[in-house]
Amino acid sequence: MSTNLRIPGPTPCPPDVLAAAAGEMINHRGPEFAELQERLTAGIQPFFGTDQEILLITASGTGAMEAAIVNTLSVGDKALCVTVGSFGDRFGTIAERYGADVTRSDIEWGEAATPELVAELIQQDEYDALLITHNETSTGVTNSIGKIAAAVREVADPLIIVDAVSSLGSIEMRMDDWGLDAVVTASQKGWLSPPGLAMAALSERGWAAAKTSTMPSFYFDLTTHHEYAERGQPPWTPALPTMYAMDAALPMLIAEGPEAIYARHHRFASWTRSAAKALGLELLADERYASDTVTAIKVPEGMTGSAVTKRLREDHDVVIAGGQGKLAASIWRIGHLGYLDEGEFAACFSALQQALVAEGFSAAEGAVIPGIDG
Amino acid sequence: MSTNLRIPGPTPCPPDVLAAAAGEMINHRGPEFAELQERLTAGIQPFFGTDQEILLITASGTGAMEAAIVNTLSVGDKALCVTVGSFGDRFGTIAERYGADVTRSDIEWGEAATPELVAELIQQDEYDALLITHNETSTGVTNSIGKIAAAVREVADPLIIVDAVSSLGSIEMRMDDWGLDAVVTASQKGWLSPPGLAMAALSERGWAAAKTSTMPSFYFDLTTHHEYAERGQPPWTPALPTMYAMDAALPMLIAEGPEAIYARHHRFASWTRSAAKALGLELLADERYASDTVTAIKVPEGMTGSAVTKRLREDHDVVIAGGQGKLAASIWRIGHLGYLDEGEFAACFSALQQALVAEGFSAAEGAVIPGIDG
Repeated sequence: MSTNLRIPGPTPCPPDVLAAAAGEMINHRGPEFAELQERLTAGIQPFFGTDQEILLITASGTGAMEAAIVNTLSVGDKALCVTVGSFGDRFGTIAERYGADVTRSDIEWGEAATPELVAELIQQDEYDALLITHNETSTGVTNSIGKIAAAVREVADPLIIVDAVSSLGSIEMRMDDWGLDAVVTASQKGWLSPPGLAMAALSERGWAAAKTSTMPSFYFDLTTHHEYAERGQPPWTPALPTMYAMDAALPMLIAEGPEAIYARHHRFASWTRSAAKALGLELLADERYASDTVTAIKVPEGMTGSAVTKRLREDHDVVIAGGQGKLAASIWRIGHLGYLDEGEFAACFSALQQALVAEGFSAAEGAVIPGIDG
Repeated sequence: MSTNLRIPGPTPCPPDVLAAAAGEMINHRGPEFAELQERLTAGIQPFFGTDQEILLITASGTGAMEAAIVNTLSVGDKALCVTVGSFGDRFGTIAERYGADVTRSDIEWGEAATPELVAELIQQDEYDALLITHNETSTGVTNSIGKIAAAVREVADPLIIVDAVSSLGSIEMRMDDWGLDAVVTASQKGWLSPPGLAMAALSERGWAAAKTSTMPSFYFDLTTHHEYAERGQPPWTPALPTMYAMDAALPMLIAEGPEAIYARHHRFASWTRSAAKALGLELLADERYASDTVTAIKVPEGMTGSAVTKRLREDHDVVIAGGQGKLAASIWRIGHLGYLDEGEFAACFSALQQALVAEGFSAAEGAVIPGIDG
């Protein structure tokens, strides 16, 4: 049996998707590639909720975050970075590196950004852009991007640039309806696929900003990506194995349909939260904004979080994640996105119970882990 | 039978390498990844000819070219870009985008840069850096980097930044002995592997320059890559399928050994050149600097190059490349790097002969294609 990988990406992939990654090489400037690219972008587009072009980038999600920034912002632009965790912080850091004047929100990790707060913050200066995370992987919090964008648009008109790396494909995204200007994601999250492929879309306003952007870019220049895509080509040699995998995964996602996929993620997320609570553990995020793709669980006082993850890995072949940044030692994170198998979740919770008990957490002893939907 | 892919990357991969790309996902922040990264960098290092750390980057070769520049140059730095084709031009363009003051050499496409010329050019201004291509994929020309670097060091002391994307692993590279400051390559060239993974190394002087570089970077920040690598991690989620493939390919390359690999590439390159000449075709590059990884063949006057590549693809399932940039219509390019199979080359030349004859190139009629080494 393979490792029970329950981190928030890379996620396990269906066997047919992994098998597809082993495909023979093709000419990335030939007709086969043009067809592959067309199938991928057409399949991805509905999940973005956009009529805009989907750009494929050979990079991790961080690369696509950089692409979103360097193509739409200019040096000296004022950006409000609404951050609720380490990936929000990273978004601000990328913008700073490239010369934006970044102001960070002060929201506690584990909390969500509220539409009211963001609307208030955006009025405190003449911001050119709002940088915001849809789903904060480091804390298991989902920001209500649709409501936040609506509240912001009522009082200001910044470019709204969204890191949807760990949400898109798993949690509803309506880029056009919500009036978002740049949205990015990556293959190893909700897409049933391995890492290596990032995706980005810009609104008309985002493309207009790209025309005048003064931040430097070459590899991540989306105008270049667009020009090549028009000819059915990638600008640079792409990560074909990941594209082949996505090409096998997308028909599965399309057959299931976005609504069913989002419901499935919500079901597994609820189950994870119920199981954690049944084991006597506390969740980091309030249920109202707890993420449907990753759950952050507080390490009980007096316990060493890494002792539990080590036991899980060594004794049970179950891999969960620790925290990041300032929460490194104080939370565990369980990913529930992409390819979700009931048996693997049951095995994960059972192993977690054993590891907790072995580490002396008596509250978990005799706890009854609920079944899914139960 | 699969397509006979004879372009200069992506190159065909051994079946075991492709199969490895289908491996199960792992935690990129866990011990398995640390071991994988250690195996890859240890295996790659001897081919670079360096004692310096090898950094792994999820990107195409162009991404690594950008990394080499933005980590070592500063805004306003004077760079001499010695270009002999479209990838040399790209190197200069990347540096310009990030604010370097770039002067380009004026060398005809199809020619090589000579040590004498580069030594002369480097003295014409106070250059901070020399940007140069080891093997120019667009023209099938290899620059004698070792000799060029030696000639340059006699008269000046710029950072020497080398695009070795389509040479490293196939043509000798002695980064440390030759005193190079940044060297980059990518998995889909000589490495028997699919695209998705780029590699970079900096000299001590390159790392010192990285400390003071004022060009912005985040995704390609090699200092960040280095800091994570020290902990056995990638900075961002990496293209695991390509890394798995490289992990299967490297033992094959190590078993064969660098010298034998370079000799094999030279043998197939010589064979390709002999076959082209036997078919009555002219080569773009002089034998003295013709590349051992890709051969550029002139399209005979009056012929349409794309008609031949179309025939090859449609009638013979053989894929060769056309030209790039200003040579787009006037050359064909045959790749001979990575996984080389005698039968596939014989089939490629035979198909080329048939396609040439079908397109009315009478010189190819009745031509006898030599055997390898013959």
